[in-house]
Amino acid sequence: MIKILLSKEGIIKIPKRGDIQTHLGIIKREVFKKAHVGQIITTHLGEPVLVTAPSYEDFIKLMKRGPQILTLKDIGEIIVFTNINKSSRVLDIGTGAGTFSIIISKIAKLVVSYDVREDYLALAKENAKILGAKNIKFKLGEIEEKEEYFDTAVMDVPDPNRLIGKAIKSVKKGGYVCVYLPSISQVSDIASKLGPPYHVMQTIKINWIVDPNKNILRPENMQLFHTGFLLIKRKIK
Amino acid sequence: MIKILLSKEGIIKIPKRGDIQTHLGIIKREVFKKAHVGQIITTHLGEPVLVTAPSYEDFIKLMKRGPQILTLKDIGEIIVFTNINKSSRVLDIGTGAGTFSIIISKIAKLVVSYDVREDYLALAKENAKILGAKNIKFKLGEIEEKEEYFDTAVMDVPDPNRLIGKAIKSVKKGGYVCVYLPSISQVSDIASKLGPPYHVMQTIKINWIVDPNKNILRPENMQLFHTGFLLIKRKIK
Amino acid sequence: MIKILLSKEGIIKIPKRGDIQTHLGIIKREVFKKAHVGQIITTHLGEPVLVTAPSYEDFIKLMKRGPQILTLKDIGEIIVFTNINKSSRVLDIGTGAGTFSIIISKIAKLVVSYDVREDYLALAKENAKILGAKNIKFKLGEIEEKEEYFDTAVMDVPDPNRLIGKAIKSVKKGGYVCVYLPSISQVSDIASKLGPPYHVMQTIKINWIVDPNKNILRPENMQLFHTGFLLIKRKIK
Amino acid sequence: MIKILLSKEGIIKIPKRGDIQTHLGIIKREVFKKAHVGQIITTHLGEPVLVTAPSYEDFIKLMKRGPQILTLKDIGEIIVFTNINKSSRVLDIGTGAGTFSIIISKIAKLVVSYDVREDYLALAKENAKILGAKNIKFKLGEIEEKEEYFDTAVMDVPDPNRLIGKAIKSVKKGGYVCVYLPSISQVSDIASKLGPPYHVMQTIKINWIVDPNKNILRPENMQLFHTGFLLIKRKIK
Repeated sequence: MIKILLSKEGIIKIPKRGDIQTHLGIIKREVFKKAHVGQIITTHLGEPVLVTAPSYEDFIKLMKRGPQILTLKDIGEIIVFTNINKSSRVLDIGTGAGTFSIIISKIAKLVVSYDVREDYLALAKENAKILGAKNIKFKLGEIEEKEEYFDTAVMDVPDPNRLIGKAIKSVKKGGYVCVYLPSISQVSDIASKLGPPYHVMQTIKINWIVDPNKNILRPENMQLFHTGFLLIKRKIK
Repeated sequence: MIKILLSKEGIIKIPKRGDIQTHLGIIKREVFKKAHVGQIITTHLGEPVLVTAPSYEDFIKLMKRGPQILTLKDIGEIIVFTNINKSSRVLDIGTGAGTFSIIISKIAKLVVSYDVREDYLALAKENAKILGAKNIKFKLGEIEEKEEYFDTAVMDVPDPNRLIGKAIKSVKKGGYVCVYLPSISQVSDIASKLGPPYHVMQTIKINWIVDPNKNILRPENMQLFHTGFLLIKRKIK
Repeated sequence: MIKILLSKEGIIKIPKRGDIQTHLGIIKREVFKKAHVGQIITTHLGEPVLVTAPSYEDFIKLMKRGPQILTLKDIGEIIVFTNINKSSRVLDIGTGAGTFSIIISKIAKLVVSYDVREDYLALAKENAKILGAKNIKFKLGEIEEKEEYFDTAVMDVPDPNRLIGKAIKSVKKGGYVCVYLPSISQVSDIASKLGPPYHVMQTIKINWIVDPNKNILRPENMQLFHTGFLLIKRKIK
Repeated sequence: MIKILLSKEGIIKIPKRGDIQTHLGIIKREVFKKAHVGQIITTHLGEPVLVTAPSYEDFIKLMKRGPQILTLKDIGEIIVFTNINKSSRVLDIGTGAGTFSIIISKIAKLVVSYDVREDYLALAKENAKILGAKNIKFKLGEIEEKEEYFDTAVMDVPDPNRLIGKAIKSVKKGGYVCVYLPSISQVSDIASKLGPPYHVMQTIKINWIVDPNKNILRPENMQLFHTGFLLIKRKIK
């Protein structure tokens, strides 16, 4: 896992080489290099900044972007509604920039992550270094896995209809398959293929502006309202 | 962890003693007792049912209820926005029925869970058996912890104002404190005490009814719209 | 328009005959009968109650129910997004219990309201008396109207596909057709038939519990989240 | 009321003088001037465009902007929940750019509209010409009205606490006062002053993208989630 520098205002950008210029003053590169996680170091102006390990939120800010990523709010819902825990083996179909695989690897025992695009896998491997994710197996191509090996499979691909059968096969009885889709009509298509029961949900995260001194207490005006729908199917037999 | 019986329609109730009556036929108690997780057993009518370990969702259905519990959707958001992972030490202030502590114990390294009510702790310990949660230390009373020991502290208590200072002390630099509150006015009160920056959010989970054969594709009419607000504060210094 | 009796707690039920029993005391029927709108009359215990004309909200509470009704929130959106004003001629396709026609008749110049069910029309006529709605023509059967006569046409019928062509014909150039549908798949079907442009929306009314003395400031937990979707098409040529 | 030019793509901008250039070709100014509402005229390329009267939506697009305006969705809710109809006398406290007064004047019998800023009143009068609103009395200063004269009073001012008493006085028994406020803490302040009962709501309009040919059926990603809260108080005595 990399080290980051944090001030009250957020992540401080670390240049490729040379000393670190911040809005609070300069930090010698050597000082940052030697500092351990959790240490407070001071700028040349005596201002304290924190050396720490990146959180999920930091990771989302630091990662290199490529294709559309799963948002943290949706990853949170997938974790709890597909039972991801530290003994889970998780299959990620559609690695993309690696967001889901990398975050889940910090929770689950093992993540196997497939993509048909080599450039996406390269991007995801680069991003995995940020969180020091070691328990991910990135694989090029379409899923080809042992039957009933995974506890949870998550699909974020343009056409899940073609691969949904394989996804279900790869999951243990009692396990979960989750399909993430932007359009509810796509959910309907795949639901029609799978047959009931399934659980379809949409989650909305509303950010609030809270400024007690100014008597401001309201949601932000514009919000990221829609990301995608989740269809969750539990495998019984 | 206990074993449960699952049919397509959901969890089958297991009586305290004697054979198991289901809508698909009878299962001998001995057969269920000997079955391993992931095994399909058949009723006297030849119908298959699955023996499996309970998921988080199953746990919510099986647990004994007492005080108002944190919902799965909120637990999902807390996990991702306070960076809970398998190396986390998590402090739970306000055990209640144990929902949060027990689910988080399946993800984090250690959970320390405080409540001032002995009856709640007894209830939570009982509920912990369902998921076989072993890495929780339940403690009676108010928090009294080493400074900067936890990665994340979560508070779900009637009056967080009194304990928020201790919660922040107990968390490592770079760690998170999350306060769960039903009223946004309570959020404003605690935000006023803490000072910026903080992150306040509300999450809504919308369930959809998807029945392609009947051309039904719509949200459920009545929804659990509001549970609580989350105030998240990151400790920098 | 009928007269109603209002206390701080809401509408007081008026019996078919005899004196009016309220939680604030008894009111002589004669007294109520002679009272004019806006008058305060007193119960035998000296408690004041208000004689008034029913508002839209009162109407919704007083009307006789039959089929599912359009909610006030949706009627509000239809008014503003289809430009209903006091010079409007409005066509209501699918009278049902009459909610939409009756409320709109208090705003528009004329409402023509069609239903294929005689019992619904009878119900709607009964309900129209509550608000004293006189400018509604209730008609049995399917729409059969002059071309380009209406400013706005609103459809709330099980299968709008069959009648949408007639609805559009009956509306003036520059006017609006609005289709109310429970399922978004139905919206998609009719959008496919109409072709773009159209405007599709869903409105959510969130009720808040505000009790400053108890520091309660939060949305109600359970909310009527979903009623229907509105598809609005403006006629250009 | 002014005339506007409408193509399938929306309102065509009319220059102050000279012929009208559109993406569909040129229209002679004389032709537009002589055309009546509802008439189709053709560009020099033979393309048809519609001459029509502006709807509420057109008005919102055409009006000159100044201070923050009430949105159509909120105006729709105010109409239905405060019982505005063609016999209503409505008091608008805080004219601003005139949006609310002007739209309501097309529904109500009379609107009296107050603002303390002369520039806002000038702006509102200018905007009133677009819809040809004649039944609005614009007044400079603070409200000073006959008691119990209005059916509905609506306040959209920075500090409603000072004027709420006058607003309630000016409304008939059985009538409504509605306060529009951006922050729920402001709602709580005024609710505390008024005392129960009152009705507090927030409405959200969700726009959907419906493109059946591309199998797209989803809410827009970013939405205008929050505008303001409505507190509605009915006057009983």
